[in-house]
Amino acid sequence: MSKMTYEELFRQIQKKRSFLCVGLDTDLDKIPAHLLTEKDPVFTFNRAIVDATLPFAVAYKPNLAFYEILGAAGWESLKKTVDYIRSQSADIFVIADAKRGDIGNTSAMYARTFFEQLDVDAVTLSPYMGRDTVAPFLAFKNKWAVLLALTSNPSAADFQYSEDENGRKLYEKVLETSREWATPEQLMYVVGATRAQELARVRRWVPEHFLLVPGVGAQGGSLAEVARYGMNSHCGLLVNSSRGILYASSGEDFAEKAGAAAAVLQQQMSQLLEDHGLAFGTNTLE
Amino acid sequence: MSKMTYEELFRQIQKKRSFLCVGLDTDLDKIPAHLLTEKDPVFTFNRAIVDATLPFAVAYKPNLAFYEILGAAGWESLKKTVDYIRSQSADIFVIADAKRGDIGNTSAMYARTFFEQLDVDAVTLSPYMGRDTVAPFLAFKNKWAVLLALTSNPSAADFQYSEDENGRKLYEKVLETSREWATPEQLMYVVGATRAQELARVRRWVPEHFLLVPGVGAQGGSLAEVARYGMNSHCGLLVNSSRGILYASSGEDFAEKAGAAAAVLQQQMSQLLEDHGLAFGTNTLE
Repeated sequence: MSKMTYEELFRQIQKKRSFLCVGLDTDLDKIPAHLLTEKDPVFTFNRAIVDATLPFAVAYKPNLAFYEILGAAGWESLKKTVDYIRSQSADIFVIADAKRGDIGNTSAMYARTFFEQLDVDAVTLSPYMGRDTVAPFLAFKNKWAVLLALTSNPSAADFQYSEDENGRKLYEKVLETSREWATPEQLMYVVGATRAQELARVRRWVPEHFLLVPGVGAQGGSLAEVARYGMNSHCGLLVNSSRGILYASSGEDFAEKAGAAAAVLQQQMSQLLEDHGLAFGTNTLE
Repeated sequence: MSKMTYEELFRQIQKKRSFLCVGLDTDLDKIPAHLLTEKDPVFTFNRAIVDATLPFAVAYKPNLAFYEILGAAGWESLKKTVDYIRSQSADIFVIADAKRGDIGNTSAMYARTFFEQLDVDAVTLSPYMGRDTVAPFLAFKNKWAVLLALTSNPSAADFQYSEDENGRKLYEKVLETSREWATPEQLMYVVGATRAQELARVRRWVPEHFLLVPGVGAQGGSLAEVARYGMNSHCGLLVNSSRGILYASSGEDFAEKAGAAAAVLQQQMSQLLEDHGLAFGTNTLE
């Protein structure tokens, strides 16, 4: 079973001079047409993407929706993808972007599904139902829960910005309450890049935790802003890019172009790590 | 594609004199041992449960966690189960208890998965990410979103009871905000039976909507209390029971005992409907 610790994750970030997470939102309607004749087009696409981006990424994040829409075949593609990533590197962080959250016995089922059957390192979870929806995930040693705090979508404001009688927003209450549930060794938060300036507020509540940051690229967030407000002494960021990498080209050169798009982000990240005094090595894989 | 309207659901409730939803939390560790040699034990179990409980239930609610833990095989069992229910009755309401919620393009994927691939009538959703996580589900005509409001688990209080500056709890804000997103023809709410007295408060915000009520039985909620505080002029309740029906017996008589457990609940429900002046017919299937 994969065991990625906080320190090991930071070590990989320093080694690769990257905090890039590649989102595997693999969509049959968007992958190159020539792959559709393959027996398992989703896996074939993912394998090529992983091969091309592995030097530049420290994490992969398959989005469950894109696999579940294919039913049983989608689960097979997902499992093969995770297994393939593991076969290529023992030190890569894999996040199942599932946004689950249910009562205890059901959450325990999901935890076994993702940590035992799929062997991912982390699962994204919704905080709405409270602690006992997260606890079964935390019962796994060296596995992670990634809790939604402040999301990147326009409607995030509907509830996440609701203020209590002390002017505290709901997402702040989620941070304040949930940070007691586990150490930064097991808990991360989703904070959207489209809300970069709120990152400073987030960091007041959770200075040490890793933040998984979607929304750079297609959704309009700025990498420099994210680093400015969100980076801590262990980097503390995993910035996700999905469409900008996966669909950089729709032709036969899709993998090459995906690798190039990931390399561009990695170079920006390398500079940002250096600016923050965190670049002690060089990306020996470049 | 199944099309269960608000009126049709009420008609079924009156016809069967029942507002019972059978939760298909089918667990290989709990189903009778003699089924484990079957090719598809989960489906075999579910089929027997459906056969035994169909006269007494208006809805079924497979819990996705229990299928996903079996990977690709679990998805096949789930699909076969939904197809089987459809083959037995055109007028049954099927809820995928998935508690999804993600940004728009991902939610659209989930909506297609559940409504097009599986052909369920409804999906449970978390409100945390706001309106655009729910909208893609509402884009399907005659399909339903079932939004978490007040859940039955002990930790529900962590965030759902958070009060804003006007003393309004988060779950109330969820009700107040989301009731504008769709009519009661497309939107239901999850309200736990373990919080029966809060049901009166819920009803102030959403007098007409159906409420999906888990927590009767194993979790300790009272059916009479739920009806007292939650029933409206169209019943407006779907009360779920899972473990109390599915695992009424672990022997060869499991289906018979499940049917008997469902019949006991149906008889209580029939009386409650009568007490509320809603029992105009007789359950002709009894």
